[in-house]
Amino acid sequence: MSVNRINTQLSERDDLALRSSLAERFERGERQAAAYHPQFARLWSLAGRHSLGGKLIRPTLAINVFRALQNDGAGSLTTGSHTDDTTESTDLPAAVITVATAIELLHYSFLLHDDVIDGDLTRRGNPNLIGTLAAEHDGENTKSLHWARSCGILMGNLLLAEVHQMIAALDVPQIVRDELLELLSHTITESVVGEQLDVGLTDRAIAPETATILEMSRLKTATYTFELPLSAAAILARVDDEIGSLLATAGAYLGLAFQLQDDLLSTFGDPELHGKDAFSDLREGKETALIAHARMTNAWPSIEPHFGFRTLTPEQGAEIRDRLRDCGAEAFVTNLIDEQMRALNELLASHGSDLTGPVCGVILNLSDALERRSV
Amino acid sequence: MSVNRINTQLSERDDLALRSSLAERFERGERQAAAYHPQFARLWSLAGRHSLGGKLIRPTLAINVFRALQNDGAGSLTTGSHTDDTTESTDLPAAVITVATAIELLHYSFLLHDDVIDGDLTRRGNPNLIGTLAAEHDGENTKSLHWARSCGILMGNLLLAEVHQMIAALDVPQIVRDELLELLSHTITESVVGEQLDVGLTDRAIAPETATILEMSRLKTATYTFELPLSAAAILARVDDEIGSLLATAGAYLGLAFQLQDDLLSTFGDPELHGKDAFSDLREGKETALIAHARMTNAWPSIEPHFGFRTLTPEQGAEIRDRLRDCGAEAFVTNLIDEQMRALNELLASHGSDLTGPVCGVILNLSDALERRSV
Repeated sequence: MSVNRINTQLSERDDLALRSSLAERFERGERQAAAYHPQFARLWSLAGRHSLGGKLIRPTLAINVFRALQNDGAGSLTTGSHTDDTTESTDLPAAVITVATAIELLHYSFLLHDDVIDGDLTRRGNPNLIGTLAAEHDGENTKSLHWARSCGILMGNLLLAEVHQMIAALDVPQIVRDELLELLSHTITESVVGEQLDVGLTDRAIAPETATILEMSRLKTATYTFELPLSAAAILARVDDEIGSLLATAGAYLGLAFQLQDDLLSTFGDPELHGKDAFSDLREGKETALIAHARMTNAWPSIEPHFGFRTLTPEQGAEIRDRLRDCGAEAFVTNLIDEQMRALNELLASHGSDLTGPVCGVILNLSDALERRSV
Repeated sequence: MSVNRINTQLSERDDLALRSSLAERFERGERQAAAYHPQFARLWSLAGRHSLGGKLIRPTLAINVFRALQNDGAGSLTTGSHTDDTTESTDLPAAVITVATAIELLHYSFLLHDDVIDGDLTRRGNPNLIGTLAAEHDGENTKSLHWARSCGILMGNLLLAEVHQMIAALDVPQIVRDELLELLSHTITESVVGEQLDVGLTDRAIAPETATILEMSRLKTATYTFELPLSAAAILARVDDEIGSLLATAGAYLGLAFQLQDDLLSTFGDPELHGKDAFSDLREGKETALIAHARMTNAWPSIEPHFGFRTLTPEQGAEIRDRLRDCGAEAFVTNLIDEQMRALNELLASHGSDLTGPVCGVILNLSDALERRSV
């Protein structure tokens, strides 16, 4: 199973519900924006196009885990529902669609601000929102980029606000709403500190210690990509606290493994498949677990002069890649990923009696997908 | 009455309650942040110091209008309260303090992102949060500024999220909470589109039409500086819809007048008093109502070459200032301010029977302060 398989594994009905909800949210934004200025409406329209063009990994995960918990017979959000209301042949509760939509909007909000911070103008080989706005204006000059990046910051803010409004307005019992708001706050805090550490490591404002780099990886990606969807599903399905915290912990293991694999793929993977610029992590001087390990070996003096070197050629990149392999950095990270997976399996085994088939199935599918991931 | 008089016109009791609430919010953030990384805690601590160093104009306005509405005998938030609960000798309801605090946090969140967008490193002559972080790191080089500005974006996001959490968690009747959330959404939308127009005008992505420039001024500042505090007070005091929309309209007039005065002061005022760099608006090429008028006169060809000229000298600035006066731009803006004030007075007069003394008093005090404002 490849990672693409995860992305498309929503049932047709759930996929349609999610996409309609996302599209509707952006269309409404665009309609309201049109009352102010065409450039404001244009910003909403572009944001909608770019967001809907994404792989929707996070809301897909939330919906699938919610479905699995329903099939496990966990308490459902719709109290007093008939048994056949909890099967996949029925519509998802509106609150589940809304939360899944909010999760994707939060992701896109983070992405917009990351693109501003990283200076990125493309995503998977195509212009991102910022690149599109700059090109529409006057190309890549100072004023165009300033305009486009300012729009990126502002659109990110609008979406961050919208996510909160959506959760606060959910028609669910107050305890569910409060737990979701608390989860949102926790997620935003961890994602922000993760991003701050990432920037601080790259800009040399924070010392590149291995523990800091691993913590950064967990905080920046794992929390909102895995813990958030898993925990949101647990809250919406109203499972008991023990299962809820088990799912959150499983999300943390999966998330760190996912980020570490991302680091590996970015350096050792096929850029044709993963869609990023080859060696962009090395060129940007990104502190990853690979680099943390390499720093502690005697290969580092031969790597360091090329690390963070903006004009690194593909040949130089390939040479650094080989040195990272030879000094054991690749094996170090592969081993860290294995550790996460072992911990995950032990966690699931130790809770065997609490977790029946479907929930374990979704988590093991994810774990399987991660292990075989090439993009 | 000077604008400083507005700022300090909270009673000692209310001022203490507001400042304690703000300080407590930042201290809690810093405490939670310390569990992650010292640099994250440092960011919270700096944000608290800079936010508490502000003039707190907006929450002060909200609290004063709330007090005035209470004294007007409008329905209070604390249902069934005794008459003497509504006088200034009693503590403000907790919800009023929380909303006032949230209003200040929203302002600081906007300010942080504005400073990133405008490239500002100082505020009132002292380093702002971004300038402080850059200086602490390694001075004003590319990496330091990138680190400091990224922290500015991230801290702004945390505060934007926090504002929503505070309103969503208010212990008030659901209708009050829903109205406040709706007001927050309206405020953020208008402030964002105002900022987008401001950036677009400066970067020449949006045509500098007078109507657009006036709309930008209203949206960027008036909405969150005047409409938000006035409307929040109206919602919390549970006044009827007619008074509520009267206060919102009064806020729009006052807010536009305030922004227009800001534009005037920035060019014609004494920089020793207003604290900004002399002629910074001209140097940055800021599209203001002054410039909109000048563009339509035959003085423009002699102004344009110096407009947006980063290295404008004080002598050149003084010359442009004189041309803006001679071509009638100063008089044009002064007249626009008078129009807002006339409209405000007509509004108050036409609702004479609905508004008793205290509320009119607060608005007229504000209007008076604006007219005499020198900083």
